[in-house]
Amino acid sequence: MGKVARIRGRRAGGSRAKRAARSVATVSEAVSKGQPGGLYKPLSDADIQRIHGAALHLLENVGIGNPIPEILHYALPAGCLLGEDQRLRFPRSLVEDLIAQSATSYVMHAPDPAHSLEISGQRVYFATSGEAVSIFDYDSRSYRPSKLVDLYDAARLADTLDHIHNFGQPFIATEYSQELYLHNINIAYAELAGTRKPLSLGIAEVEHIDSLINFYDTYLGKEGGFLERPFCIFGGCPIVSPLRFARENAEVLVKVAELGLTADIAVAPQAGATSPAALAGTLAQCFAETLACLAVVNMVRPGSAIDFGMWPFVSDLRTGSFSGGSGEEALLMAATAQLCNYYGLISSVASGMTDSKCMDAQAGYEKGITTTAAALAGGNLISSYPGILGSLIGQSFEGMVIDNDMIGSIQRLLRGVEVNDETLSLEVIEQAVHGVGHYLNHPQTLDVMQSEFLYPTVADRRTPGAWEAEGREDIVALAHEKVKNVLSSHYPVYIDTAADARLREKFPIRLDKKDMQAGNGRW
Amino acid sequence: MGKVARIRGRRAGGSRAKRAARSVATVSEAVSKGQPGGLYKPLSDADIQRIHGAALHLLENVGIGNPIPEILHYALPAGCLLGEDQRLRFPRSLVEDLIAQSATSYVMHAPDPAHSLEISGQRVYFATSGEAVSIFDYDSRSYRPSKLVDLYDAARLADTLDHIHNFGQPFIATEYSQELYLHNINIAYAELAGTRKPLSLGIAEVEHIDSLINFYDTYLGKEGGFLERPFCIFGGCPIVSPLRFARENAEVLVKVAELGLTADIAVAPQAGATSPAALAGTLAQCFAETLACLAVVNMVRPGSAIDFGMWPFVSDLRTGSFSGGSGEEALLMAATAQLCNYYGLISSVASGMTDSKCMDAQAGYEKGITTTAAALAGGNLISSYPGILGSLIGQSFEGMVIDNDMIGSIQRLLRGVEVNDETLSLEVIEQAVHGVGHYLNHPQTLDVMQSEFLYPTVADRRTPGAWEAEGREDIVALAHEKVKNVLSSHYPVYIDTAADARLREKFPIRLDKKDMQAGNGRW
Repeated sequence: MGKVARIRGRRAGGSRAKRAARSVATVSEAVSKGQPGGLYKPLSDADIQRIHGAALHLLENVGIGNPIPEILHYALPAGCLLGEDQRLRFPRSLVEDLIAQSATSYVMHAPDPAHSLEISGQRVYFATSGEAVSIFDYDSRSYRPSKLVDLYDAARLADTLDHIHNFGQPFIATEYSQELYLHNINIAYAELAGTRKPLSLGIAEVEHIDSLINFYDTYLGKEGGFLERPFCIFGGCPIVSPLRFARENAEVLVKVAELGLTADIAVAPQAGATSPAALAGTLAQCFAETLACLAVVNMVRPGSAIDFGMWPFVSDLRTGSFSGGSGEEALLMAATAQLCNYYGLISSVASGMTDSKCMDAQAGYEKGITTTAAALAGGNLISSYPGILGSLIGQSFEGMVIDNDMIGSIQRLLRGVEVNDETLSLEVIEQAVHGVGHYLNHPQTLDVMQSEFLYPTVADRRTPGAWEAEGREDIVALAHEKVKNVLSSHYPVYIDTAADARLREKFPIRLDKKDMQAGNGRW
Repeated sequence: MGKVARIRGRRAGGSRAKRAARSVATVSEAVSKGQPGGLYKPLSDADIQRIHGAALHLLENVGIGNPIPEILHYALPAGCLLGEDQRLRFPRSLVEDLIAQSATSYVMHAPDPAHSLEISGQRVYFATSGEAVSIFDYDSRSYRPSKLVDLYDAARLADTLDHIHNFGQPFIATEYSQELYLHNINIAYAELAGTRKPLSLGIAEVEHIDSLINFYDTYLGKEGGFLERPFCIFGGCPIVSPLRFARENAEVLVKVAELGLTADIAVAPQAGATSPAALAGTLAQCFAETLACLAVVNMVRPGSAIDFGMWPFVSDLRTGSFSGGSGEEALLMAATAQLCNYYGLISSVASGMTDSKCMDAQAGYEKGITTTAAALAGGNLISSYPGILGSLIGQSFEGMVIDNDMIGSIQRLLRGVEVNDETLSLEVIEQAVHGVGHYLNHPQTLDVMQSEFLYPTVADRRTPGAWEAEGREDIVALAHEKVKNVLSSHYPVYIDTAADARLREKFPIRLDKKDMQAGNGRW
């Protein structure tokens, strides 16, 4: 009973402190966005070099199939070779040169510059992502198709969540999924109306890019304004694994590079299905595929920035289905972060893609393990999928709130321990030992209360007694209260009346104004 | 919609594989116990040396209060100094010598030698632990006092869970908590009856050690048998922070060392309450306190093995309460693992001590983050507290099952990626690209299905459609089914009839035989 007695003793100490009624605001001085990662290195340097060598071998010898004319236009003069099998082969030295030319940093602009992110080194940021197709409904515990208004709500919610740094489109507006132009314009509108954080958007058709730039220029009231400070990143999946270009998304890739924008890509072969079941083989193939995209944008425009989205996915080989929450997925993503950082690439990794269908303990630990591994390995842009469920099938608003607290904890871990004369506290310790025998009221304790410790917003730290007396809610119930509070009250006016009029005149905006005002009864 | 289309495409591939009806047993070839950690290094070498220097400074200058006579007996001749303030001071060079002498490895024996563990290097093992006082009941969602029969059930359950390597007493038998002799003997009996994995036991009174050795010798039918191959580790908390010995547990520490047994200790100052709120200061103080224990056992018997349980705990400074699930806790424990490994100590760290009161998403992510950090940092013995809830207040049987799957995932992460010619799969990739265009039926896929991938036992990977159709259970419900199945059927006979008769004749065994047989109606 030794251990437990000791712990109970400390809880008593806790009560003393409680009586001192130190109530404080829960602000996040303890963590900051863009903290460096990379102290977890799953691969040896030799492993990294072998994977790199295998990827360059594949690019040189197997090449990438379906090279679209837009790519051939740049690639053949640059030194790529088109084989009789219509596969585009990349000489090793060319790829090495293009890696060396590729941008190693960029500023991810936000509608509000205060939210802009400096993407460089091993700085770590967290983003929503996904393009799921459904919402997991709290009351019915079932999945329903996601709508445009849900996206606006998700953006407003993310706007209030400290540890989400980039709002990537988490799901589609299913009611417009067959009308891609209408869909993209309205997604862009809903994102912009809901948050001032940096935005991302999946683009399926290259011709929508000009429309979207026009949309953003109209919002700004300035032609050419968007390209001066592009606060939305356009993304897609330019590869169909194994080792083929995907026509539409590859066209987007070329166009984005031509415009001087950062390309945001996800190359996601699935081990055992579209890449080898051996994890090293999946890394080699996926590295080759993603390097092909890096090569393309840098042949189009040397020095292009690309979010190097090398996203090896994992199959559950019993069924062949994608398993986003597995230990293998955590490992692969951490390995890619390290691999990218080793070569100075801007790493974009995925995490949090739980296989659970609801926000339960499985969702918690799968998200916790995968996101911890990705962050410690130093992924620059972690699509940590706050709120995603069911191997990327659906989004939970409550999950966004819970995952925000989770990411906060991971950010605190990432920050590390500052070791210096002051923090080593030798004098403080001597004072406590020779004085009152504890630290509860020591000035240092109060001083570092907000700087050393991060307090969660919904995670429950009540005593079991209080919890039992006050309703035994799980964290989903607590998060649901927060979702309702935020979404019934946080109706920011990020698109002012004049801009809104300009946009609605020129574009088919379908988000109803009454859904964008408090008191509409939706929450 | 690019990303999502790609994923949907792959799920279709999955169905194809499903039709091939590859049903396989879920065996754990993909991970093994004792895999090495240490690839996550939260501290720099300079940080480590400064913390070490601060700890030695504290031992030399502030010393440890309440040095009991049994310690003074060994410490003063060895060179420690007793000040006028009755604090025992440890010269720096003495501590350094004792660190150098201390054992760097040992075999943790199990009742069944097949379960014995080689504790050395950066090998990582996972253990139950805790000495909680209650069980979180599945049906009533409330805490009730833990009983002796619960401990027997927990041992039987752990016996079937692959990723729990050491059965440390997870909770006490509250009905005997005022009768320590009765309690210890019965805990020892219940553990031994329920599992053949290595055992641990918290000892509060030094005189119980001889009784327990007698108990185990009686079980073996051989006087002196236990000390030849001690399959239960005796532990306690020999320190009251800041920097004082705890009388009873310090007596246990000395006695254990005198017997040549491994000391299993937990030194758990709580940052902001019984150690500095500055994390570096907590590490310095806790390292000093734990080194004092290492010094004691090595002054008693040079070369002693000690599970270096440097367990800095974290306060929520808003209330002063212990917060076991925080990011700060994950960070501190990972730092201690690295610190211990740097000096060749046998690191014992804690994780999984969630603050949630039920097995919800908060419990999942807090357990996931803290256990991932501890494992990647290379903690040798991770008291990962499978099933614990409420900052160590109570144990959930369902939680044990869920956490076992979680630890499995973390073990898979820990194992890493094997990179060699075969796994890089260049030929396999060429075959797929030039052949059928996928890997679903490639011989490699089937070959590595069990060696590269770990399949969870209860974690749910069904499709959302199947989940909705089949009952929408969360993982706690799935785990409860497993708990009932195991506990209604797994009644191992690890204490044979003759040994049982010997034990029951000599010791006041209170575990009812009818509770130890199938069909007793308890589950």
